[in-house]
Amino acid sequence: MTSWVPGADASLFGLDNLPYGVFSRDGGEPRVGVRIGDFVMDASAVAAYGGDPRDGPHLAAAWDHPSLNAFLALGRPAWDTARDWLVEVLGNEVHAERTAPHLHRVAEVSLHLPFQVADYVDFYCSLQHATNVGRMFRPDGDALTPNWRHLPIGYHGRAGTVVVSGTDVRRPTGQGRPGSDGGPPAFGPSRRLDIEAELGFVVGTPSTQGTSVSTGAYADHVFGVTPLNDWSARDIQAWEYVPLGPFLGKSFATSISPWVTPLAALDAARVPLPGQDPEPLPYLGVDGPAGYDIDVQIVLNGEVVSRPPYAAMYWSPAQMLAHLTINGASLRTGDLYASGTISGDEREQRGSFLELSWGGTQPFGSEGRTFLEDGDEVVLRATAAGVLGGRIALGEVAGKILPAG
Amino acid sequence: MTSWVPGADASLFGLDNLPYGVFSRDGGEPRVGVRIGDFVMDASAVAAYGGDPRDGPHLAAAWDHPSLNAFLALGRPAWDTARDWLVEVLGNEVHAERTAPHLHRVAEVSLHLPFQVADYVDFYCSLQHATNVGRMFRPDGDALTPNWRHLPIGYHGRAGTVVVSGTDVRRPTGQGRPGSDGGPPAFGPSRRLDIEAELGFVVGTPSTQGTSVSTGAYADHVFGVTPLNDWSARDIQAWEYVPLGPFLGKSFATSISPWVTPLAALDAARVPLPGQDPEPLPYLGVDGPAGYDIDVQIVLNGEVVSRPPYAAMYWSPAQMLAHLTINGASLRTGDLYASGTISGDEREQRGSFLELSWGGTQPFGSEGRTFLEDGDEVVLRATAAGVLGGRIALGEVAGKILPAG
Repeated sequence: MTSWVPGADASLFGLDNLPYGVFSRDGGEPRVGVRIGDFVMDASAVAAYGGDPRDGPHLAAAWDHPSLNAFLALGRPAWDTARDWLVEVLGNEVHAERTAPHLHRVAEVSLHLPFQVADYVDFYCSLQHATNVGRMFRPDGDALTPNWRHLPIGYHGRAGTVVVSGTDVRRPTGQGRPGSDGGPPAFGPSRRLDIEAELGFVVGTPSTQGTSVSTGAYADHVFGVTPLNDWSARDIQAWEYVPLGPFLGKSFATSISPWVTPLAALDAARVPLPGQDPEPLPYLGVDGPAGYDIDVQIVLNGEVVSRPPYAAMYWSPAQMLAHLTINGASLRTGDLYASGTISGDEREQRGSFLELSWGGTQPFGSEGRTFLEDGDEVVLRATAAGVLGGRIALGEVAGKILPAG
Repeated sequence: MTSWVPGADASLFGLDNLPYGVFSRDGGEPRVGVRIGDFVMDASAVAAYGGDPRDGPHLAAAWDHPSLNAFLALGRPAWDTARDWLVEVLGNEVHAERTAPHLHRVAEVSLHLPFQVADYVDFYCSLQHATNVGRMFRPDGDALTPNWRHLPIGYHGRAGTVVVSGTDVRRPTGQGRPGSDGGPPAFGPSRRLDIEAELGFVVGTPSTQGTSVSTGAYADHVFGVTPLNDWSARDIQAWEYVPLGPFLGKSFATSISPWVTPLAALDAARVPLPGQDPEPLPYLGVDGPAGYDIDVQIVLNGEVVSRPPYAAMYWSPAQMLAHLTINGASLRTGDLYASGTISGDEREQRGSFLELSWGGTQPFGSEGRTFLEDGDEVVLRATAAGVLGGRIALGEVAGKILPAG
């Protein structure tokens, strides 16, 4: 299965990938695009010309929007139909002449937030991350809270500050712990600004309030995956988070990739979970390979400083979804839920600066960094096995730190 | 200043109130309405006929929507213009003949969620509530966490499960603490289902990511107020909330009134805060009367079981807003933030069943209730002094408990 698009087969964006995004050209209206090699295909324009677009008018209309939401709302059968059609259009040379005019170089278009985020939930699914944080913050107690192995812990984040890769992030200002003299809280620009390398899962098919979604219905509701950087101000977070959880330490910005990779592109990356002990309650049970073997890289100012392995995650995306809805909470098209920081067993697999520098005590990387400095740029990359035997890339997430305002 | 609308002046919905909502008739399209007495006025229909609608076409277009969001987005000058015009149209008898056909009995229309909720944040602003909860949950420690008097503690809730008054609430299912034998967590329908009597504040004017909103800009951004019931499953919450805060114990449903009362209607209800010690940091400073004297009632199956006084709240809505944005988090039209449970000094002023029953140990009311039972109906009412010397009502919030699914 090869593509007629120049360079596509040799790239990490071949026919086995085909992530969706939203792009615009020359200040025109944003619309849905599909990534192939170094190009983005104007999806509605191609679907509209009739090049074997099974269900073409339907899809063309859904793609002629400034966000993926209309397409996401169509549900699994339409997503599968669309994928079959894309493979035909971009794989069969008979379509090349009519399709090529609707391919634009990625470097020459503007990429936008790919979907309107409805609710955003952040989980805490890495045993290694939770253990590291627990050891640092509660050195005399158990590293894990008693609930950790029984449920995927999560909390709601701020949907309105989710931004697309490439958006600069202004260093947040806020309160931190008072000094030991019992004076007023510290106040000013965060001095412990951090990242969290995560994957985000994008919900397409909604559910009804008062009902729950089983782990088995995961692929009916979730459309795809995007790398995600959960920027975190550790000093703000440490002071505010007891008893109601993280708030301003997180809510200033969360970055996602411009590209959402469909679940179908990750079929060859599915792996069993590393193991759950004790066995979770029945509503959290999963059959088969519920995890994903996705390699993540954290790149700081051009240097790879960590390689977190998604395969090490304790809780799976299907379990997060089942937990999120077991109380009857409904899903909306555009809901985004994230895995929490991905950390592996090794130091160079940790997914946050907090862990990489062990609370700021062990500088890392060639620049001897502990927390983020103004001007730093962080890029998250992720790759996985594709269904054609090679590798596919999930879209990068990049962001640069601006000084406090 | 009197109204020609029959019964309006003697009601709690006179010319000094004029809350906004969204209604439909006979299955037609929902649109913006204004409450006057026992009637709802079709706002865009009246504005369109030209009865002295200063800025009429503008407002008529904004009101011809199935949510308040377009009107909310117009900002403070338009809100003030609209209010002046409503007082003219509903107060000057010269408009009666042309306006009357666009008044519909509230009892004969359907009321909808008044605005699309963007992000929902819940605060924890009552000193009495936080102290009560702290004493119950941490009997051997300080009732208040060290941060409580320095910042209004808050967290994000689920915007997608905010529902309008009258929507039934299905009892949530979930995990609770394991028994003392160390077995698996409890699982099943919540057995400690509760309410929280709160006020919600509705944001109209957005702000830019990376900037903050001062306490002095509160009335430029916040359009109005709605009573809010933050339904809470205490057993689910108690097991899940450490370390990342409440999640499924809250996310199954949050009810708001169909009516949003404009800030201008609450001018006469403004009162100084009860006092803040220590003085908060400068970004949380407020001048003048930053609180509201609003009387709330909790009605359980027709019986008033508590009368929480909003005037007792420690942190003000302007301070919540300034805190919410001090890290640069942006506001969107439709953002909703709530006060947290309103509790006064007296037992019969507590704003949750958890406090009224002191953790389930002291049944209250004529039915001897501790937590909610299936079939229970809770109504929150709220009234305040109006600018004409009488009282005004904020719209009620009602909800009935359905058995677990």
